[in-house]
Parts: sequence; structure tokens; C-alpha cells
Amino acid sequence: MVSAPAMASAPSIPELVARIRAGEVRAGARAMRLVDDRHTLGPALLSALYPHGGRAHVIGVTGNPGSGKSTLTSALIALYRARGHKVGVVCVDPSSPFSGGAILGDRIRMAEHALDDGVFIRSAATRGHLGGLSRSTSDQVLVLDAMGYDPIILETVGVGQDEVEVVRVAHTTAVVLVPGLGDEIQAMKAGLLEVADVFVVNKADREGADRTEKDLRMLQGLGPHPDAASWEAPIVRTVATSGQGVERLAEVFDQHRAFAFDSLQKRRERARYEVESVLRDRWARTVEARLTGAGGATLLDEVASRALDPWTLADRLNEVRGGQA
Amino acid sequence: MVSAPAMASAPSIPELVARIRAGEVRAGARAMRLVDDRHTLGPALLSALYPHGGRAHVIGVTGNPGSGKSTLTSALIALYRARGHKVGVVCVDPSSPFSGGAILGDRIRMAEHALDDGVFIRSAATRGHLGGLSRSTSDQVLVLDAMGYDPIILETVGVGQDEVEVVRVAHTTAVVLVPGLGDEIQAMKAGLLEVADVFVVNKADREGADRTEKDLRMLQGLGPHPDAASWEAPIVRTVATSGQGVERLAEVFDQHRAFAFDSLQKRRERARYEVESVLRDRWARTVEARLTGAGGATLLDEVASRALDPWTLADRLNEVRGGQA
Repeated sequence: MVSAPAMASAPSIPELVARIRAGEVRAGARAMRLVDDRHTLGPALLSALYPHGGRAHVIGVTGNPGSGKSTLTSALIALYRARGHKVGVVCVDPSSPFSGGAILGDRIRMAEHALDDGVFIRSAATRGHLGGLSRSTSDQVLVLDAMGYDPIILETVGVGQDEVEVVRVAHTTAVVLVPGLGDEIQAMKAGLLEVADVFVVNKADREGADRTEKDLRMLQGLGPHPDAASWEAPIVRTVATSGQGVERLAEVFDQHRAFAFDSLQKRRERARYEVESVLRDRWARTVEARLTGAGGATLLDEVASRALDPWTLADRLNEVRGGQA
Repeated sequence: MVSAPAMASAPSIPELVARIRAGEVRAGARAMRLVDDRHTLGPALLSALYPHGGRAHVIGVTGNPGSGKSTLTSALIALYRARGHKVGVVCVDPSSPFSGGAILGDRIRMAEHALDDGVFIRSAATRGHLGGLSRSTSDQVLVLDAMGYDPIILETVGVGQDEVEVVRVAHTTAVVLVPGLGDEIQAMKAGLLEVADVFVVNKADREGADRTEKDLRMLQGLGPHPDAASWEAPIVRTVATSGQGVERLAEVFDQHRAFAFDSLQKRRERARYEVESVLRDRWARTVEARLTGAGGATLLDEVASRALDPWTLADRLNEVRGGQA
């Protein structure tokens, strides 16, 4: 009797998977919460969902604040909705205090889609360690994918190392720049030139669009795309506020989708990234668990006083871990 | 008889440690090579050296290309040499193809110190994975520290995420900016404001130094230093080419040295960082070993085709690892 409410609040994994696959929004939101809260069921649930993913085209949209990413994302949502697609959006902000809760309607520019059942907007949780953000993003993408959302747009806030890491989750990465702000130089410094599959020169009605495009072409030559033999990142001009160029952008996304889905190498790279990020997340949690609390502080004090060295301590932590694995 | 040459080329660890502690340059260079080449003796050697480290003040010097870091480092070397210190320098360039070899005299601005036995200049190897660069830097610092170099200056090339990671190896981090280039905004974006213990406005004879200092004060208020209660990062103006302000900078470094060495929390943080980076380096090597080659490709193909999920594969890899640990 006592366990009845607990039972009611915890559906079995097969049941949850079935409801997610049927596209039930509440089931999807619950799955995301379980994963974000690091519930013990999380890994088993993701594991059970994995065979049902891999259908959605994941599109990363990155660029400096002020480049108009949100407006562009909003325009893309409208276009895909008009074509009858269900669209998933994951907003990724490494500096945000959001803890992964739903932010439906939270962002003004996307508010127009807030009441549309065919659009699911979420933010990614950071999990407090390097790489945790991209793992969280992957997990949310998997749930949306299994729910039948396609495409899934990842929108990031900036152009730092975190963003470069996060867009590895995407099949297709669009880097959005604005004429006249030197965005192309900053994108290059952040290593985004190498990961861009498409460049978007947004606000292309502004002065300097020709120059930005020319600079991009020049910089592309300096740091060639890893798939340069088979794919050269096109430059698409848009004016997101009026919708100009957005059709063309979606067309380029479709072309790259075919490329990314068909390439064996691409699929292997993505699989490797998935496995690495799961391993890295586990590693970070193990370290956290061992080095936090009184026992951890004692060990770290021994290292600080040089009575113990980091390699010997690492051996010991691995032994404990091996024994409990 | 056959093994004699091999013996000659491979001194025992205690012998190597003794020669390193005596400050023998050839022994130090050999130790760095063993570590960089990932020789099996590497971890045991580092482990044996660890109790003999912890004496040197490690100073990180970071900032945009063109900020005059090398000239400043060179001026600092001259100052510390005049005071009778042996000075170690580790040049860290994430984008450099250097594989960790000595670059003595390779950098024009430091060439004046190339023939000085009291100065040891090295570059850090990247090791090809995230975090590998900072581990390599830590290892080189440990060898220089055990050899009696103090201070040890880490000079990085840029202001990206790699640099933020690398300067965690330092006790004291100086962020070098130049007036009028918007360096302060870029430093903020890269997360360097939070890690800076000292700001250096170099080329301070240029127009705009007042403005840069004012902007820095304002930005400091936005993202306070984690040690804000006990240390507020001072702003030091220098003209490295003439040596102006370098005495004052060294004075500030000395003040922060006392702070960093005395603070229990600081020492724990550093110890934790050391342990984490050793663990992360091992993790990356394990993943590399398991996922590379024919066996790895087969497993990744199964993940790519969704016949296998990343969590189940991670479990399997951990089992193998636990068994072999």
C-alpha cells in the first residue's frame, strides 16, 4: 500500500519508452527530467531509447550573441512546421543558471511557437563539469529523436570552446555571422571555421556582406574543413527578420543531411563521440564521488603536502573503481 | 653483454631522480623526453619526482598574440636572473606542431637567454586530446621544479579555453592586455577574468591605457575573482620593451606567491587539479586504445547502426579496464 504512490510516479522503462515513441510530450519531459536529475534509471532509459533514435537530422546553430540566431531559428521552425515536420529545439547556454527545466515560451523570439504542439523547446543542463553540457545535449536530442521530432535544432549562445564541443552532437553545423563585426575572425579563433558545415551571413542587407563573404572564403582556405574533399561549406545570406534566404538555407541543410547520413566515416565519428562522452561523463562522476567529502579532502591534503603523489592516488582510485564496477 | 648499451641508455629511476635534483640539465631533458614520448617509465619517474617538487612559484603569462608576452617574459627572466634565481620557462601553444622538443633559442625575443645555464626553456606537447596539453605542462613543471628552477613561467599563445585550462597549473596567473584593442572584452569572453590574479596593461605608453584600466575595473565587478574575499587582482602597467613596471610586476607576483602558498584551499585546489588531470589523461589513453584499430571500428559501427548503445559499450569497456587494472 505504502509503495503504491511510488509505483504510480515511476512507470517501468518499457512503458516510458513506448509512450515516448508515441510522441507523448509528458513522457518525454519526464524522461528528460530523470536524465537531468541523474536519476539511477537515467542510463537504463537512454540505453533502451537508443535503438529508436538516429532518425532525426540534428542541426547546430551557433554564432555570437547579436547575430540573430534566435530569429533565424524561429524562422526555420516556421518553415519546417509549414512542411509538416515536428521540430525539436535544444537551447544550450554554458553560462546559464538554468538547470535543464523546460523554458517553453521563455525566449521572446520563440514565443510564437510556444503554443504549437509540434514544437518542443528545451534547454540543456550544464552538470558542472567539462563535457557535461554536450552529454546533456546528446541525451535531450536522443529523447526528442525517439519522440519523432525531426529536425532537432541546437542553438548555442556563443562561439567559445564549449560551443565547439556541443556542436559535435549535430550532423550539420551552421555558423551565423553578421557583416562588419569581425565575427569571422572570432569564429576562426574559436575553432569554429573547422566545424562549420554551412556559413550564414545574417542581416545580409547590412553594409559589408560582400566583404564578410570574401573574408570567409579567404579564411576557409587557411583552415580547410576536415571533409574538404567531399563537402565545401557554402555561404548562405539571410535576413532572418524578413525570412529572406531561409528557404535556401533549409535546402543546404537537406543537402548536408544526405551527406552526413550517408557517410560511413561521419557515422563512425558520431558514434565515437557518443561513446567518448558517456565515458567522460562517468569518469567525471567517479572523480567527483571519490574526491569530495572528508575522505577526499584527506587524500588531497596528502597530495598537497607531497606525502602522496597523483599517480599513486590515481592507481588507488582505479582499484576501488575496478572492484565496484 | 648485449644488454650493456641498453643499460647505458636507461639509467635507473633513483639515479635519474638524483641527477635531476642536482640540477643536471641533460638528466632533466631526458626525463622530459621520457614523459613526452609516453615511455612506460614516465609515470614511475614522475611519481618518484613528486615529493621533490612543490618549491617553485609557477607563474602563468597569458594574453592575445601581439600583447608582448614574450618580451615581458624575457624582461622577467632578466630580473629574476639578476636576483640570482634559476628560471624555467614552458611555452604552451595548443596550435603548434611542436612535439615537445627543446626550443632553446628558437624564439627570437628569448634568444638573449639561450646561452644562460640558469634559464631552461621548453615547449609543451599537446598529446592530441583535450586536457593533454595541461597534463604535459604539469609534467614539465614538475621536472623543472625538482631541478631547482624557481620561478617557472608558463607562457601561452592565446586566450582560448585551452589557455584557461593550462593556467590552472600556475599558482599565479597574469593576463596581459594592450590598450585600445578590446582585449579586455575578449579576455572576459574566454573566461580569463575569473582566473586572472594580476592584470598587466602592457605597452602602457600607448593611448588608451586609462580606458583599458577603467574597463577592467568595471568588468572585474561583473565577474568577481573566486578569491575576491582575500585577493583582488591588481592592475600593473608595463612597457616591456623598456623594462618599465617590470619590478613592480615581480613585486606583485611575490605578494601573490605568499598568498597562493599559504592558502590551504589553494593548495587543495591545485592537488585536486593534479589528480584530475592524471586521471583524465589515463581515461583518454584507455579510450584511445579501446576504440582505435579494427576491434574498435567494429564496435563503433555497431553503435552507429544502433545495434549497440553507448552505455552498454561503456560498461563493457569498464569491465575490460577493471580486469586489467
